[in-house]
Amino acid sequence: MTDVRDFRNVQVDEVEVRYARMIGVTLGDPAGIGPEVTAWALAHARRELLQHVIVFGDSAILARGAAAMGVSELLGQVACEGDAAWGVVAGIPSEAAGAAQVSWLEAAVAAARAGRVDALVTAPISKTWARRAGFAFPGHTELLAQRFGAREVAMTFVGPRLVVALATVHLPLAQVAGALSIERIVAVGELLAASLARDLARKPPVRIGVVGLNPHAGEGGMLGGEEIAVIAPAVAELARRLDGVAVMSGPLVPDAAFRMAADGGVDGLVAMYHDQALIPVKLLDFEEAVNVTLGLPIVRTSPDHGTAYDLAGSGRARPASMAAALALAARMRAARAAGADAPWR
Amino acid sequence: MTDVRDFRNVQVDEVEVRYARMIGVTLGDPAGIGPEVTAWALAHARRELLQHVIVFGDSAILARGAAAMGVSELLGQVACEGDAAWGVVAGIPSEAAGAAQVSWLEAAVAAARAGRVDALVTAPISKTWARRAGFAFPGHTELLAQRFGAREVAMTFVGPRLVVALATVHLPLAQVAGALSIERIVAVGELLAASLARDLARKPPVRIGVVGLNPHAGEGGMLGGEEIAVIAPAVAELARRLDGVAVMSGPLVPDAAFRMAADGGVDGLVAMYHDQALIPVKLLDFEEAVNVTLGLPIVRTSPDHGTAYDLAGSGRARPASMAAALALAARMRAARAAGADAPWR
Repeated sequence: MTDVRDFRNVQVDEVEVRYARMIGVTLGDPAGIGPEVTAWALAHARRELLQHVIVFGDSAILARGAAAMGVSELLGQVACEGDAAWGVVAGIPSEAAGAAQVSWLEAAVAAARAGRVDALVTAPISKTWARRAGFAFPGHTELLAQRFGAREVAMTFVGPRLVVALATVHLPLAQVAGALSIERIVAVGELLAASLARDLARKPPVRIGVVGLNPHAGEGGMLGGEEIAVIAPAVAELARRLDGVAVMSGPLVPDAAFRMAADGGVDGLVAMYHDQALIPVKLLDFEEAVNVTLGLPIVRTSPDHGTAYDLAGSGRARPASMAAALALAARMRAARAAGADAPWR
Repeated sequence: MTDVRDFRNVQVDEVEVRYARMIGVTLGDPAGIGPEVTAWALAHARRELLQHVIVFGDSAILARGAAAMGVSELLGQVACEGDAAWGVVAGIPSEAAGAAQVSWLEAAVAAARAGRVDALVTAPISKTWARRAGFAFPGHTELLAQRFGAREVAMTFVGPRLVVALATVHLPLAQVAGALSIERIVAVGELLAASLARDLARKPPVRIGVVGLNPHAGEGGMLGGEEIAVIAPAVAELARRLDGVAVMSGPLVPDAAFRMAADGGVDGLVAMYHDQALIPVKLLDFEEAVNVTLGLPIVRTSPDHGTAYDLAGSGRARPASMAAALALAARMRAARAAGADAPWR
C-alpha cells in the first residue's frame, strides 16, 4: 500500500505563504495513465521541488496510480479532494472521469489566475470524454489561451536535442498551406526567441531558423509558392524585429533543417506543421520531449503522450515524459523568477 | 597526378564477355561534385567489384575529380571518352557541362536497354543545365521510367536504419492530398515488398507499413479524411494481394511510424510525401542513405545529394553516399542474379 498520509489536502489559498506561487499539476483523465505517471514523477522529483507542487486531483486516485507504479510514499499537497472520481476504474473512460478531469483543470486554471500558481503541468485528458463533461475546446492549449486572454500561443516541443515551435497544429495536411500567414509565423518566431533566452537560458545571440513548407523549401517556386509569398517575408520581418537574435536567412530546407538543429546549428526552429516537427522530435528526443505552451502568462508544460487507456492501471506506462515536463516547468519558472530581477530586462 | 593509365576506354559492346552485364556509373554534371565522389567511391570499392563497373563519362574529367580527392590510382573502364566536357571548369555550370551530363546518361541508358548494363549508379545532374541541353524530364527517375517503359516507379530511400518508399515525390505540399490514390499506394507497396524480399534479403515474412497523411493519422477523420477514403483501403488491398507479406494494419501514425521502423518493427514503410520520408531518413541515415528507383527492369541507385557547385573542385565533397550507392547497386544486382536461380521464384 502506498502511504499518502503526507499528501495533505489543502485549499489553494492555504498554501504556505513562503511558497506563494506553486507548480500546479493536474492529474488528467483519472481513467488514463495520468495518475500513474504523475505519482512516479512526484516520487522521483527533488524533495525541495515538492514543496512547490500542488496536485489538482483526488488523493485516492493519485494513491492508486502510485500503487500501480510501485511508488511507496508520496509527499506533497493536493487540492480538489473528494471530487466525483471515486467510481472511476483505470482503463475504463466514463462520464465521472470526464467530469473529474475538467473540474481539476478548471481549479488549476482558477488558482493560476488568482496568482497562487505560476506553472501548470497537465497530465493527458480525453478530448472525447472531457467534451461530454462540457469542455468546449480542442485541447488544453486552447482552453488556457482563452482563460488567460492570450492573443497568440505556440505549441512548442522542448527536448535535449531539439526545440521546435509550431506555426500550425491540429489541421488536416491539405489545409496547412492555406492556414499560414506572415503574422502567425512572426508571432511564433517571437515567442520562440523570447522563450529560448528567458526560459531556457540560451546564450545570446539566440539563434533561430524557420523551416520551409515544401520539398527543397519550394526550390525557387517550382515546388510551391508559400516560401516566396509567406515564409521568406516572415523571416525578413523576424530579422528586423528581433534585436540581438540571429535569424537564419531564408526558409530552411525541411529535410536538412532538423539535422542542422540537432547538430547545434540553431537553438530553435519554427516548423510549419504538426508532423514536420513531431516526426523529428519523436525520433531524436522521444520520451524526453516536453510539450510547452508559449504565449501564456504562466509556464505550462505537459507530457508528449495521451491517456493510453490500454496501459492504465497496469503500471507499465512510461513516466519519463511526465517527469521531464515537471522538471522543465520547475526550470522555466525559476529562470523567469531570476530574469525578473535581471537588470537587462 | 592521378594515374589513370589503367582506366581503359572501351566501347560498351567490347566489355569482356565473362562480365556480360556491368554496373554503369554516370559522372553526372562534370561541373559538380559527381566526378569527385565517383572517383573516391571507385578507389574505395572492392577490387573485384571494379571488374564489373563501367563509367559513363570522360576519363580526363574523372581524373580531375580523383586528383581533387587525393585519389592516386583508378582502375576500371570508361565509356564516352572524348565528349565535349573539356572546357568544363569545376564549380561553373555551363552549356558544355549540360550537354555532357545528358549524353553520358543517355549512353548509359542505351547500354542498359541493350542488355550490357544491368545496374545504374547515377551521380547528380543539374536539372536546369540538363534541360538547356534538351533534357525534358524533372529528373533521372522520370527519364528512366520513360526509356524503360515502366508503368509505376517508386523513389525509395535505403539506409542502414530505414527503408522508405514514396507515394508522391516532388509536389508542393498543398497538392499531396489530391495526388494520392488507392492504386498508387498499392503499387508502391507492392514494389517495396518485392524489393525487400528480392533485393535486400529481408527474411520472410517481409513486414511493411503504410504511413498516414495527417496528424495522428487523421484521428478517426477529425484531422483529415484521406486515411479513411484512400490509405486504409490501400492497406487492406495490399494485405489481400501480398502473399507472405505482413502488412501492418491501418495507416500508421506518422510521428510514431518512423521510430517504430528504426527500432525494427517493420522492414519498410510507404510514406505519403517527400519530407515525411526525407526528414527521418536524413536524421537517422544521413550520408548512408541511398536513393533507389524501384519498378525498373534494372537496378538504379544514386547518392542523396545534388551537384553542390560550391564544393566542386575543392575535394571537400563527402563521398559516403556515392560509395553507398555503388555498394548497394552491387548488392542488389547480386541478389537479383541469385534470386533468378532460386526455386521459389
